[in-house]
Amino acid sequence: MREIMDKLFDFRTVDLSEDGESLVMLDQTLLPGEIRYLYLKTEESIWEAIYRLKVRGAPAIGVAAAYGIYVASGKYETESAGDFLNEVGRIKSYLETSRPTAVNLFWALERMEKAAVSAAEKYSGSVSCVDDIRAEMKKEAVRIHEEDVETCRRIGENCLGLLEPGMGILTHCNAGALATTGIGTALAPVYEGLRRGYDFRIFADETRPLLQGARLTAWELDRAGADVTLICDNMASCVMKSGKIQAVITGADRIAANGDTANKIGTSGLAVLANEYGIPVYINAPLSTVDLNCRTGEDIEIEERPGEEIYKMWYEKPMSVEGIKTFNPAFDVTDSRYISAIITEKGIAKPPFEQSIKKLFR
Amino acid sequence: MREIMDKLFDFRTVDLSEDGESLVMLDQTLLPGEIRYLYLKTEESIWEAIYRLKVRGAPAIGVAAAYGIYVASGKYETESAGDFLNEVGRIKSYLETSRPTAVNLFWALERMEKAAVSAAEKYSGSVSCVDDIRAEMKKEAVRIHEEDVETCRRIGENCLGLLEPGMGILTHCNAGALATTGIGTALAPVYEGLRRGYDFRIFADETRPLLQGARLTAWELDRAGADVTLICDNMASCVMKSGKIQAVITGADRIAANGDTANKIGTSGLAVLANEYGIPVYINAPLSTVDLNCRTGEDIEIEERPGEEIYKMWYEKPMSVEGIKTFNPAFDVTDSRYISAIITEKGIAKPPFEQSIKKLFR
Repeated sequence: MREIMDKLFDFRTVDLSEDGESLVMLDQTLLPGEIRYLYLKTEESIWEAIYRLKVRGAPAIGVAAAYGIYVASGKYETESAGDFLNEVGRIKSYLETSRPTAVNLFWALERMEKAAVSAAEKYSGSVSCVDDIRAEMKKEAVRIHEEDVETCRRIGENCLGLLEPGMGILTHCNAGALATTGIGTALAPVYEGLRRGYDFRIFADETRPLLQGARLTAWELDRAGADVTLICDNMASCVMKSGKIQAVITGADRIAANGDTANKIGTSGLAVLANEYGIPVYINAPLSTVDLNCRTGEDIEIEERPGEEIYKMWYEKPMSVEGIKTFNPAFDVTDSRYISAIITEKGIAKPPFEQSIKKLFR
Repeated sequence: MREIMDKLFDFRTVDLSEDGESLVMLDQTLLPGEIRYLYLKTEESIWEAIYRLKVRGAPAIGVAAAYGIYVASGKYETESAGDFLNEVGRIKSYLETSRPTAVNLFWALERMEKAAVSAAEKYSGSVSCVDDIRAEMKKEAVRIHEEDVETCRRIGENCLGLLEPGMGILTHCNAGALATTGIGTALAPVYEGLRRGYDFRIFADETRPLLQGARLTAWELDRAGADVTLICDNMASCVMKSGKIQAVITGADRIAANGDTANKIGTSGLAVLANEYGIPVYINAPLSTVDLNCRTGEDIEIEERPGEEIYKMWYEKPMSVEGIKTFNPAFDVTDSRYISAIITEKGIAKPPFEQSIKKLFR
């Protein structure tokens, strides 16, 4: 995987250091101004990095947590497998509190603990039991990493089948290499296309209020040599109307059983506009994003965030009245009727989604 | 007029000073951080203020130009009416270059020169001829000011007939008191409603990239005691879908004969979304905004502005890749089929607009 990646990217979102003793993480809060890697060894520094959004994107957080628990537990010196497992459990509970709503965080830590427990059983009685558990944990973390890379690649390949060279593609927020440890989800077909010489023209919404499109998507596409144009969110209608866009592709935070999709605020508006202008809307996401316990989008709760994000962050001058009332939903739900296809690593779901999504789980 | 205004506003966008010797102008480039009035006497300072967007909004620029040419020409000491008229013509040509695309600038300066010329004919031979011309120019400038106030009031009253107390109203950019010398155009019904105790809830798009919604609309509504909520542009779909909005009201930069409307970038997307969610879209503008020489929106050229506005302005930290490719149209055109009504001081035009707009000109 690394080889393919290296041709496109000169950065790593999350990785294990060469010596295996640090979780390496690109500090995304400094982008695009500065490229700085964090080498994290302690659970406190790893907790802090996840909490402070230095790593973001569900898949990338999952891989960070996996390497993180491996690295942090390695500092504990003991020859007792029982003591070591207790330590792993303690670090797991601790890291879980760093982003309490991040599903991949829990899922990755759970897998890591299970790998440790089952290694403890397997090597029980061996003099090097703790070392053996450590070795199995490392393997599991690398597996989680490799699976993420492969999931991205497959999403890219599956989505590419829906696209044509020369298309204009509009994307929102960042569901790219920086949100995963692979080639992203929404941006995966763009990178797969780049490798095959497709001349896509990408339009990146800046994505207010936190500007993930301007800071992250434009940055990573530009570095990979893609043809990327930055626009403000409110320019999407104008760009679509002008005929510059042939597909809208975004990621997803959560997909309901009927295909309704929660994603970064602004996605639902884009989808309505795209439908009006006859442009297909593709949602790219790992199958793990589908929550079959959510029947429809109405079951998805939308997080509201502080208004300061709108009128204070990034700004030197005051940009509105101090303390002005705001409404700052972090996500919105796109009704499935505006979605042309949901592209996963297991295949493509098309309307009617209730049936097609179920099929992907078989 | 002043009395009504004073109840709502504690600021003046543009006015003549008490002693009649200065053009008074609220410096809008400093809002919302600082309220500073400029007292301008020379044509150079007036030119600079218009050029630097210290005053903006077609009606406000018109009034500023009218008072400006009156004030600046008053410094010229002569008893020769011919010399004085030459001076007026020179200042007119000079001020015209401050915002070459602002129609109201030309129109107001033209009216002021005509008033001077016709006064010169009327008082020809009088020993106080220059003073008489000056007096007529002052009257004409005050007339332009009063007409603007009255036009706003009528637009407000006409639009209010389409609204109900308690409605949620979404607006974009600033077509308020700060864009005129009255109660605005898009915001006129809001202020008229406030005076009558209507409990409108206003949602103001921040309006990227220049943030006129956050800086100006939220500021003036808040000061007038309106219930205003600031949102990012990409939140409009979410807010509409939640049932919070019963009307979208914006101003217009130019309206074609068929009702297609050029306005601040983002307006066309709002209009499409509003139609999707069954919300009426109202365009409030003086009849002078209608350009019968434009048959449709396709005849309206859209100004593209520098990308730095998107990724550099307002920001302390870099918010995207330095020199990233951008697309930054200042306006977009809303197709008339998404517009429910165009509200002018002469009445309301409803679809089909080709007929209803013509009627307003009769």
